[in-house]
Amino acid sequence: MSRARLRDLAITIGHLPPGPFNAITDVPGIWVGQTTLIYDEPRVARTGLTIILPRQGEIWNDNAFAGFYAFNGTGEMTGIHWLIESGLLCYPIAITNTHQVGLVRDTLIAYGLEHNYAEGSALPVVAETYDGWLNDLDAYHLTREHIYQTIAAAGPGPVAEGNVGGGTGMICHDFKGGIGTASRLVACPSGCYTLGVLVQANHGDRALLRINGVPVGQEIDETHTPLPWPESPLGGSIIVVIATDAPLLPIQCKRLAQRATVGLARVGSVGHNSSGDLFLAFTTGNHFPRKVNVPVEMQMLPHHHLNSFFEAVAEAVEEAILNALTAAETMTGVKGRTAYALPLVELQQVMARYRRAG
Amino acid sequence: MSRARLRDLAITIGHLPPGPFNAITDVPGIWVGQTTLIYDEPRVARTGLTIILPRQGEIWNDNAFAGFYAFNGTGEMTGIHWLIESGLLCYPIAITNTHQVGLVRDTLIAYGLEHNYAEGSALPVVAETYDGWLNDLDAYHLTREHIYQTIAAAGPGPVAEGNVGGGTGMICHDFKGGIGTASRLVACPSGCYTLGVLVQANHGDRALLRINGVPVGQEIDETHTPLPWPESPLGGSIIVVIATDAPLLPIQCKRLAQRATVGLARVGSVGHNSSGDLFLAFTTGNHFPRKVNVPVEMQMLPHHHLNSFFEAVAEAVEEAILNALTAAETMTGVKGRTAYALPLVELQQVMARYRRAG
Amino acid sequence: MSRARLRDLAITIGHLPPGPFNAITDVPGIWVGQTTLIYDEPRVARTGLTIILPRQGEIWNDNAFAGFYAFNGTGEMTGIHWLIESGLLCYPIAITNTHQVGLVRDTLIAYGLEHNYAEGSALPVVAETYDGWLNDLDAYHLTREHIYQTIAAAGPGPVAEGNVGGGTGMICHDFKGGIGTASRLVACPSGCYTLGVLVQANHGDRALLRINGVPVGQEIDETHTPLPWPESPLGGSIIVVIATDAPLLPIQCKRLAQRATVGLARVGSVGHNSSGDLFLAFTTGNHFPRKVNVPVEMQMLPHHHLNSFFEAVAEAVEEAILNALTAAETMTGVKGRTAYALPLVELQQVMARYRRAG
Amino acid sequence: MSRARLRDLAITIGHLPPGPFNAITDVPGIWVGQTTLIYDEPRVARTGLTIILPRQGEIWNDNAFAGFYAFNGTGEMTGIHWLIESGLLCYPIAITNTHQVGLVRDTLIAYGLEHNYAEGSALPVVAETYDGWLNDLDAYHLTREHIYQTIAAAGPGPVAEGNVGGGTGMICHDFKGGIGTASRLVACPSGCYTLGVLVQANHGDRALLRINGVPVGQEIDETHTPLPWPESPLGGSIIVVIATDAPLLPIQCKRLAQRATVGLARVGSVGHNSSGDLFLAFTTGNHFPRKVNVPVEMQMLPHHHLNSFFEAVAEAVEEAILNALTAAETMTGVKGRTAYALPLVELQQVMARYRRAG
Repeated sequence: MSRARLRDLAITIGHLPPGPFNAITDVPGIWVGQTTLIYDEPRVARTGLTIILPRQGEIWNDNAFAGFYAFNGTGEMTGIHWLIESGLLCYPIAITNTHQVGLVRDTLIAYGLEHNYAEGSALPVVAETYDGWLNDLDAYHLTREHIYQTIAAAGPGPVAEGNVGGGTGMICHDFKGGIGTASRLVACPSGCYTLGVLVQANHGDRALLRINGVPVGQEIDETHTPLPWPESPLGGSIIVVIATDAPLLPIQCKRLAQRATVGLARVGSVGHNSSGDLFLAFTTGNHFPRKVNVPVEMQMLPHHHLNSFFEAVAEAVEEAILNALTAAETMTGVKGRTAYALPLVELQQVMARYRRAG
Repeated sequence: MSRARLRDLAITIGHLPPGPFNAITDVPGIWVGQTTLIYDEPRVARTGLTIILPRQGEIWNDNAFAGFYAFNGTGEMTGIHWLIESGLLCYPIAITNTHQVGLVRDTLIAYGLEHNYAEGSALPVVAETYDGWLNDLDAYHLTREHIYQTIAAAGPGPVAEGNVGGGTGMICHDFKGGIGTASRLVACPSGCYTLGVLVQANHGDRALLRINGVPVGQEIDETHTPLPWPESPLGGSIIVVIATDAPLLPIQCKRLAQRATVGLARVGSVGHNSSGDLFLAFTTGNHFPRKVNVPVEMQMLPHHHLNSFFEAVAEAVEEAILNALTAAETMTGVKGRTAYALPLVELQQVMARYRRAG
Repeated sequence: MSRARLRDLAITIGHLPPGPFNAITDVPGIWVGQTTLIYDEPRVARTGLTIILPRQGEIWNDNAFAGFYAFNGTGEMTGIHWLIESGLLCYPIAITNTHQVGLVRDTLIAYGLEHNYAEGSALPVVAETYDGWLNDLDAYHLTREHIYQTIAAAGPGPVAEGNVGGGTGMICHDFKGGIGTASRLVACPSGCYTLGVLVQANHGDRALLRINGVPVGQEIDETHTPLPWPESPLGGSIIVVIATDAPLLPIQCKRLAQRATVGLARVGSVGHNSSGDLFLAFTTGNHFPRKVNVPVEMQMLPHHHLNSFFEAVAEAVEEAILNALTAAETMTGVKGRTAYALPLVELQQVMARYRRAG
Repeated sequence: MSRARLRDLAITIGHLPPGPFNAITDVPGIWVGQTTLIYDEPRVARTGLTIILPRQGEIWNDNAFAGFYAFNGTGEMTGIHWLIESGLLCYPIAITNTHQVGLVRDTLIAYGLEHNYAEGSALPVVAETYDGWLNDLDAYHLTREHIYQTIAAAGPGPVAEGNVGGGTGMICHDFKGGIGTASRLVACPSGCYTLGVLVQANHGDRALLRINGVPVGQEIDETHTPLPWPESPLGGSIIVVIATDAPLLPIQCKRLAQRATVGLARVGSVGHNSSGDLFLAFTTGNHFPRKVNVPVEMQMLPHHHLNSFFEAVAEAVEEAILNALTAAETMTGVKGRTAYALPLVELQQVMARYRRAG
């Protein structure tokens, strides 16, 4: 389902080097699993589930530090009251469609209990964006089995982008959107770390789309590629997950989460009213064992070392959104509606015209 | 399932007068519906669902202003990112057990769509506390039908307390807890208003329990009434919902929500680490129609008029928790475990001894 | 200026033991300095300055972790944007009157530069409550020299209470208020720690005053002791500083700060609209050297160990406020106005009547 | 002190039209006063004060709604606890250098009392950025008289930009910075409104500077124009004030404040660690009289009407920062240090090369 990644088109975002996969899985121990549901009978499915499993699945027993920021809160991400209170990520992170967040949440609790995790504080992190323009949401395609299967499928290495997982039916800047990922290597006086991002991109207006500063959305307008909706759009949201292995405190993770706004802004978002722009950042660089009963040893990077991480977040978020756009293919869904892919040849022509080609 | 209300015992909290029902339903248009599941076969059920329906059910089309405060975030209340962003309550408020929040949430979206409400921004408010000590949580007793049935059953008037609805299997200050409610009439220079509170009380230690300042938890200790758990408690949380008809802004609703802490503190809570102490305040005193496309007329009470409301919140939260305790009956649940009711005769004796009798 | 401490009256708050001084200075390395200005010529002064100097004054070079909570924001505490952003306390904490916060703030920057501290990020923490009912505020009694002198005077050991330092002209629950302090020893599975509190108490209504649950404010009303103001009160605020030596993260310090609300509520506060109820908690249990350029080693207590600290905060805040009340003496100030001290004999009689005597 | 405005260079930001002055003063009733101190004897002054006076100076008696967001909290803005608590702006907004925030704050209280404003809750809004690289900060150039004089000088109409007022000694993206302003006219279904922005820009790295998407900071690097500091920079911050006359609630003002991040991001900010990036948004479109004692009538725009305002904030913040850069002239200050202005001819050449010329 993937056409290209942004760098395949010789478009480079920022100055920091990406990791080997240019994906969130470049952060050691971060696994991703995805289930994609695309079929037309008995009812049209264009939906799915993406799960990020930190610590090779051991996140339930060995919690990570995390922080959260809502740039615009028109969306759901469960489990956040506890994450804010404790600074801990104790669960996998799941992203799906709007109408089945509850199913995924309840099922993750059941999964945890069956695996002897986390009795008595059952607060999974499940987020959503709205795919009801292409997907027949009322068919509730996802089942409990899909959740188990997605966890089982999780692993390291390259991450599929575009029309996959939770991003299957998503639309971004009025082109076909979906899942995107990117990473950056960060050198600071304390050492070298990796920072990775995964987005489920379902937000934005075409007129505002910018790629590396070039007003692509104005150049490739509806005279070139039809807009997805003659009627007004109903939803629009982006979930951003930021992972790193640097030894940060929860308060520093929150600072990273806030910087996702910079990446969004560079691509042309202003955080529209109906857009659930929810950002979660976590780090595996410190360990917090679930059953510990003594003080835990931690490390904390000096705050001024975060400057490179802030740039890495901005670059990786920008590139992850663009990877979702370049990877996603044109999709026709429920009621015969079509969301068109960002046309890559025209994109390269526009970039060249603005002296931003490779 | 209700033994007594605090005032039946001639114990009065504070100086403001309660409304006619001394319940959240004293606020005009606030309906409450509850479904209580108590049975032993095929598996032990001690659980249920409580739904607060503002505006006689029309909350979906005519939103209210609202604010939120997490005194301690070890719990779930969905839909809060949007509530904080917008200051709007657009949904009924549902309270249930920990493991079925997702089911209730997804079902409320379905219900809304079937009734032609709220397409495209589906962010119901569903909260939980943990009843797994008395209830066989893994049996997932609640079904979609229970949610429809609870909405259908909602109405004005007296509200059942104790072992009912979402509070059925709850434990509070180590006595049997559950649902409690109370209200206050508030006179301020702007006029007279009503403020009502409903709690699902599942929190607290016995040693810290105070009633009207009297250390009841130390006087009625485990030598009089057995503690529920020899093993250590697993959960503990309280959900507080505050309703009023005063013309407040969202920012003022948040101020009310923060004051729930005062009521909790007077009864002996310190916000224990595992306690999800989540407070939501809303007002029907301003109207925000869902489909409006012009500026909406509002009113705002001067901030200094809120002082009486702050006292009303403190009093009504305190009394609602105590009503849960005096109403709830001793309950035996899964694995033969028993949570004992607060003994009312001893309570009155203790209060008299401390010169706090009626 | 001190009449008695609460424990001298055989009134004990809570069950945790206090430290040797029952003061914030029981936390190792916490120094307190105070300057008290009481004179009538040329203009009436009833004001002063209290400075808390963590790490024996070395806080500028060896920062501490900290968190903040505004129960009610009608007050000033400078430097908090940075404290929230970084989780760091980098300055002494100064508390004074409303009109001279700026002078103290600017002077602390100058002091820091002269001592070669903290160039380029000059964000001192200075808080205030309003003493204009007894003090001729427009005379601006405090000078730069007073600030230097207060720092120089800071030291360990007992802390003067009542009409001293920043608390000199303050009024609390309509009795004479001021500075109060208390401490608790906290044993948790991780070890033993100390938690200390200092308050500048200038808030509250008499009718709501409770001591150990007894409605003292109703028993000792204006028929016994005149209220300070026939005209309506102008201000009212309380600054709470919580210190500990436990190895906490910033996010955990914030949790402590939130619990100060419990102590206030027990004494009868509801967070009135005009009351600046600002709480700051910090810990010396972790070290963050100002000029560090490598990851810093930290420790973090498991969150569930905080339960004892939450109780300690509630108890110590309650007792610190009451110490301010029992220590403060009747004071006559500008325009011949008098704020009366809480009468100690009557207090003991009331407590006995409610079976709360020692 | 002003060379050019961005639009004089035929560079246009965004698609919304500016108001007649393209300044914050396009919002009816917003006055700006500035005092600029540039002299070398007896000590080098490169500093000043900018004051924004809403409601033609009547803000003290007729409060406005306001919201706040700290993108990065390494800075001071006093009075914000109350602004967040109440949603009210009750004071002028003053912006100056880091070391004299206190003087300005205390003086604004005195000014208010002398004019019979605001007795008893004295919480002025004063912000700062650090000008110590060009200005001899330790000379404390500003006096009380300057504050009175700045208020007296405030008025409507064009606003001086660049090396003026609080922005006199500031440095932005390693070029000479300072005060900048811009405005947008916003048409939404509810009617037409004006939104204006004023910034004191003292932040950013040159390498990241982008103008309308063009990487100007990489094209005009230190080989063309010297960087200001061979030694590492000490500060860097930006204060953003957003004003509008639309009928918004406080919660909606906060949403505007958050969107300032988008404007910053487009110009190349990532919110560096040492940068105090503090944003305040207020509206005169609702009125809250200071001494009111009855419910106040308000209007509220539907949230979805805010989308145009979000774009207006992004555009106007971006343009205001760039106006600061194009207006500011090269300045030599203390110790012979020089901050060079953004060279306008080269700028236009670069923009043309990237097809972004007028």
